[in-house]
Amino acid sequence: METLPEGTLRFIPLGGVGEIGKNMYAYQVRDQILVVDCGLKFPDDDMFGVDVVVPDVRWLIENKDAVQAIVLTHGHEDHIGGLAHILPQLDNVPVYGPKLALGLAKGRLSERKILGQVTLREFGPDDILSIGHFTVEPIRVSHSIPDSFALAIRTPAGTMIHTGDFKFDQTPVDGLLFDVAKLARISEEGVLGLVSDTTNVERPGFVPSEQIVGQTFDRIIREAPGRVIIASFASQIHRMQMAVNSAQKFGRKVAAVGRSIQTNFEFASTAGYLQVPEGIRVRAEDTGSVRAAELVILTTGSQGEPLAGLSRMANDDHRQVRIQENDTIILSASPIPGNEDAVWRVVNRLIERGANVIYDTIMPVHVSGHGYSEELKLVLNIVNPRYAIPVHGEARMLRRYNIIAQEMGWRKEDTFHLSIGDVLELNETEGKVVDRIPSGAVLVDSSGSGAIHEVVLRDRQHLAEDGFVVLVVGLNRETGEIVSGPEILSRGFVYMDHSEDLINDAVASVREYFEGFPAGSSREIDAVQGDLRQSLKKLFERRTGRRPLVLPLVMEL
Amino acid sequence: METLPEGTLRFIPLGGVGEIGKNMYAYQVRDQILVVDCGLKFPDDDMFGVDVVVPDVRWLIENKDAVQAIVLTHGHEDHIGGLAHILPQLDNVPVYGPKLALGLAKGRLSERKILGQVTLREFGPDDILSIGHFTVEPIRVSHSIPDSFALAIRTPAGTMIHTGDFKFDQTPVDGLLFDVAKLARISEEGVLGLVSDTTNVERPGFVPSEQIVGQTFDRIIREAPGRVIIASFASQIHRMQMAVNSAQKFGRKVAAVGRSIQTNFEFASTAGYLQVPEGIRVRAEDTGSVRAAELVILTTGSQGEPLAGLSRMANDDHRQVRIQENDTIILSASPIPGNEDAVWRVVNRLIERGANVIYDTIMPVHVSGHGYSEELKLVLNIVNPRYAIPVHGEARMLRRYNIIAQEMGWRKEDTFHLSIGDVLELNETEGKVVDRIPSGAVLVDSSGSGAIHEVVLRDRQHLAEDGFVVLVVGLNRETGEIVSGPEILSRGFVYMDHSEDLINDAVASVREYFEGFPAGSSREIDAVQGDLRQSLKKLFERRTGRRPLVLPLVMEL
Repeated sequence: METLPEGTLRFIPLGGVGEIGKNMYAYQVRDQILVVDCGLKFPDDDMFGVDVVVPDVRWLIENKDAVQAIVLTHGHEDHIGGLAHILPQLDNVPVYGPKLALGLAKGRLSERKILGQVTLREFGPDDILSIGHFTVEPIRVSHSIPDSFALAIRTPAGTMIHTGDFKFDQTPVDGLLFDVAKLARISEEGVLGLVSDTTNVERPGFVPSEQIVGQTFDRIIREAPGRVIIASFASQIHRMQMAVNSAQKFGRKVAAVGRSIQTNFEFASTAGYLQVPEGIRVRAEDTGSVRAAELVILTTGSQGEPLAGLSRMANDDHRQVRIQENDTIILSASPIPGNEDAVWRVVNRLIERGANVIYDTIMPVHVSGHGYSEELKLVLNIVNPRYAIPVHGEARMLRRYNIIAQEMGWRKEDTFHLSIGDVLELNETEGKVVDRIPSGAVLVDSSGSGAIHEVVLRDRQHLAEDGFVVLVVGLNRETGEIVSGPEILSRGFVYMDHSEDLINDAVASVREYFEGFPAGSSREIDAVQGDLRQSLKKLFERRTGRRPLVLPLVMEL
Repeated sequence: METLPEGTLRFIPLGGVGEIGKNMYAYQVRDQILVVDCGLKFPDDDMFGVDVVVPDVRWLIENKDAVQAIVLTHGHEDHIGGLAHILPQLDNVPVYGPKLALGLAKGRLSERKILGQVTLREFGPDDILSIGHFTVEPIRVSHSIPDSFALAIRTPAGTMIHTGDFKFDQTPVDGLLFDVAKLARISEEGVLGLVSDTTNVERPGFVPSEQIVGQTFDRIIREAPGRVIIASFASQIHRMQMAVNSAQKFGRKVAAVGRSIQTNFEFASTAGYLQVPEGIRVRAEDTGSVRAAELVILTTGSQGEPLAGLSRMANDDHRQVRIQENDTIILSASPIPGNEDAVWRVVNRLIERGANVIYDTIMPVHVSGHGYSEELKLVLNIVNPRYAIPVHGEARMLRRYNIIAQEMGWRKEDTFHLSIGDVLELNETEGKVVDRIPSGAVLVDSSGSGAIHEVVLRDRQHLAEDGFVVLVVGLNRETGEIVSGPEILSRGFVYMDHSEDLINDAVASVREYFEGFPAGSSREIDAVQGDLRQSLKKLFERRTGRRPLVLPLVMEL
C-alpha cells in the first residue's frame, strides 16, 4: 500500500455497493486505514449450502498494520455480522461501536468463542474518537434500531460524512431525534465527501414515522379475539417497545419466543433500550397458562427463515406455540428482496391453519428503516459536500442517486457509481477511481467447514440442474478386457427405475469401447477415462437433452 | 365418477388455487365434465431442472369419456400453456377459444408436433357454445391481452359465471370495453356461483388504465437521445400497439427482436389485433442501418428469463443488439413473484453498461392486467351469485376475498377457500366440499425427458446442498481382503484439493472395516454397502457438519 500525499484521501468500498448487504468501507489517509462497519449478506438462491456471505478482506489482511480500527454505525447484521469471521484475520483490530451494536456483536463473538481475543470500545453520542490520523464524531440518526449513528470522519485531507443507515423520524419510539444540528454544524466547516445510504432512493417523499406502526398495533391488539403474535427481526427493539406499550394498554402479557429474540429482549431491557413494565413479561414456556386474549407473543421469522419461530409455527413444528383459529399474526417487516417466496409461503401456510395474518399491504404494520428520496436530498443539501458518494444500494439505486445529485447541482464528475474494490481518490480539486484492489465475496458455511470454494459451488449448481453419473469399470490392462463392471451409479439425472434402456445402452457403449481396446495398450488411464466421459456425455445429451456430471473410474486390476 | 343428481353441480379446481399459475378448472353436471383453461406455471427455485409445471390431470384421464371440451378464456401461458402436455393424454378433446388464444396456442402445439391431432374451435363475443349439458356464452372483459373473456356457463343445475382474468379499463387500447351489460343481463336471470379472479384483491381501489402506459411511452420516446428498447411479455399485444403508436408519432421505426415476439407481432397484425402503419416496421437484422434516435425495439425478457432478449443484452450476448450509453430501456412489466432477483439482476447489469433503465418505480410504464379490490367487488355485486368462489390466487388472496365477500353480505358458508382437487358440490340450498380427487403438479423437463420424478428432484435438492461421495472397493470375497481401491470420488461436497486429511481418514475407516471382515463371509453385498454408507456419513457429518449423498460400491472380484 502506498503512502498517500497530504490532502489526499482514498475511499474503498469492500462491500455494500452494487448490492444491499455486507457493508464495509475503508478510508485511507497517508499510511493509515480506518474501516467503517463489517457486515454480512444472506446468500443468493443459487449459492447452495452457503449460510452467509462476508466481504473478501484480502487487501486489509495484506495491510494489516495500517488498519487502525473498525467503527460500527449500528447493530444490524449487514453492518456487524462479518466481525466473527473477519476479526481473527485482522489480528483483532479494535472495534468501536455504540453500546447496543457492541452488545449484539458480543453475542455472536462469544458463540464463535473469540470474544476473549477482541477489543471492543464503546462510544456515546458526545464522544470524539481519536484513531490515528482520523478523528471520528458520531452523529445520532433515526433508523429501525436504536443507537444508530452517522460518522463525521475528520482527516488531514478533509472531513467525510458517512451516513450509515438513516431516516428522519420526528416522533421516534425512543424519543431520540436525528441530531440535525450537529450534522449541520460539522458540515458548515466544509465536507470533502458524503457517503450516503441510498436504499430507498426510488421511493418519493418521506418515510412515515414508526409511530404509525404503534397505532396499528394498538388497533389490532385491542380488537384481537385471541393471541397476537408479532414477527419481526430480533434486533427490532423499537417494534418490541411498541408491542410492549400496546400490550400494557390493553391488559396483555408479553412473551419473547425464540433464542435470539429472548437474548435481545433481555439485553435491550437491561441496557435501557427497552422499557418493560413490572410483571408484564411471561416466559416462553409459561405462555400456555395465560389466556389467549391476554397474550402478545414476539417472535422472529419475518423473512421466512426456515428455522425461525414463525416458520416453525406455520409448519406446526414449534415447541411452544401451536397456531389456533383465533390467532392474529402480525408480519411486522417487508420481505428483503430475494425472500419474497419464502415469506409468502409462510403467510399462506399460517392462513391455511386458520390464523388471521396481517401484513404490510393489509394494514401499516411496517415502515422502512431507510429514508426516502426527499430525506436523502435533505442530507445531501445540509452536508453540501464536494463529492457525493452513494453506497448501500444496488446499481440501480446508486445510479438513481447520481441522477438526483446532478439534478441538485452536483457535476457528473463529482458523484460516483462505485463497484466493490474501486479505489476512489479524493482531494480538493478532483475525485477519481485510480485503482481496484482485490476484493469480492467470501461464501461461508457456518456449519463448520468455513469458506466454500467456488469449484464446490459450481459443482453443486451443476448437480442441482442435471445430477451425476459415475461409471466404474475394472480393466485387465494386459488383456485389454473388462474384468469387472461396467457399473453405473447415478442420482438426480433420470429416474433409474424407468431408464433401463438408457443405462443398458450406456453400458453397451462402454463395452464397445473396450472391445476396440488393444491388449497391453499403453494409453494413460486418464485418457481412457476422458474418452469414456466424452462418449457418455454425448449419449446422455442426445437421449435426454440433459448434461449430467459424468465421472468414469477405470480401475486396473 | 358418479353421475350427479339433477340440480347439483360440482366445481373442481385442478390448478390455480393456492397459487398464481396453471389455471385449470373442471365443472361437472350429471355425467359430463367441462374444463376451463389449461395453463402452466413456472417452477419454484428449488425445482431444479424443471422447465414448466402443469396440472396433474389423472382424474380427467380416468374420466376421459366424460370430458366434453376445454374452453379457454384468453391466451396467456398460465391459461393455455398446459395444452401441449395435457391434450395428448385426453385423446385430444376439443378446445374452444377466442381467436387470439387459439393462434398463440397453435404455435406451441405445432412446436410439439401435435397440432395435426387437435381440434380447435374458435369462438367470438356473440357466439353461444352448446357443449353437452353445458351452454357457454363468452362475455368480453378487459385484460392485458386482447380477446379476453369471462364465461357464463349455463347448466341444468344453474348458471356459473367464470370471470377468467379481468379488470375494467374505460379507455382500452383496442377500444373494446368490458361487456358489463351482457354480464348484468345474464346475472339478472340468477347465478349459482361466481368463480372470480382474486390476484389483486389486496390492492385498494381501481387499477389505472393502460393509457397511462401509452402516455409514458410518448414522453420517453419523444425525449430519448438514442434507441428505445421496450421489454414486455411476447403476448402483450396492447403494449406493442402503444409502442407502435408512440414510434409513429415521433418518427421512429419499430423492430420486434426475438423469436416469440416476432411470431406474435406478425400473427397479431395479420389477425387484426395490432394496427401497424405501412413502412414503420424494420426487420431485426436491419436495425443496424436505422439511426439510433429513429428506432424503437420490442423484445422479451421482462422477467429476467436468462435466454430472452433483455437478459442477453444485459450480458452483452445478443446477436443483434449491443447496449450503448444512449440507450433507453423500458421494463414494461412487474416482476412476477419469485422473479424479483432475476429481474433486478438484469436491470443492474443494463445500468452498469450505461443504459438509462426505466421501470415501474421510476415512471408508470406498467399497469397490472388484474382488477383491484373495488373491481372485484363490482363484479361480485353485479353477478350477485348464490356462492362466491375465489380462484387465481395464493391462500392469502383467496382468504382476503372470502373476508371481503362476507363484509359485502355473503354468509361465511357461501364463500369458499378451495385447494387443488377439492370437489365443491353446489345446489340451490347448500355448497360444500364433499371429496378430494387425486391431483397436484407435474414437473416437466421440456428438454425432452418429459415429467421429472420426485425422487430425482429430491436427489437434486440433496446434491445442491451437500454434494456426493462415491466409494469404490474391489473385494475378494474368499479372503475378505480389499483387492482394489478404496477409491473416493466426490463433487460438490468439499474442495478436494484442500481435504486430503478428510479423504485419507475416510479411506482408512474403510480399510479398518474390511480388516475386521471375515474371509468367506456370507454377509450380503447390500448389507456391506449399508455398513460403509453409515460409517462414512457419520464421519463426514462429524468432521464437516455436512451430509453428502454417500454411495458405496463394493465389487466382488
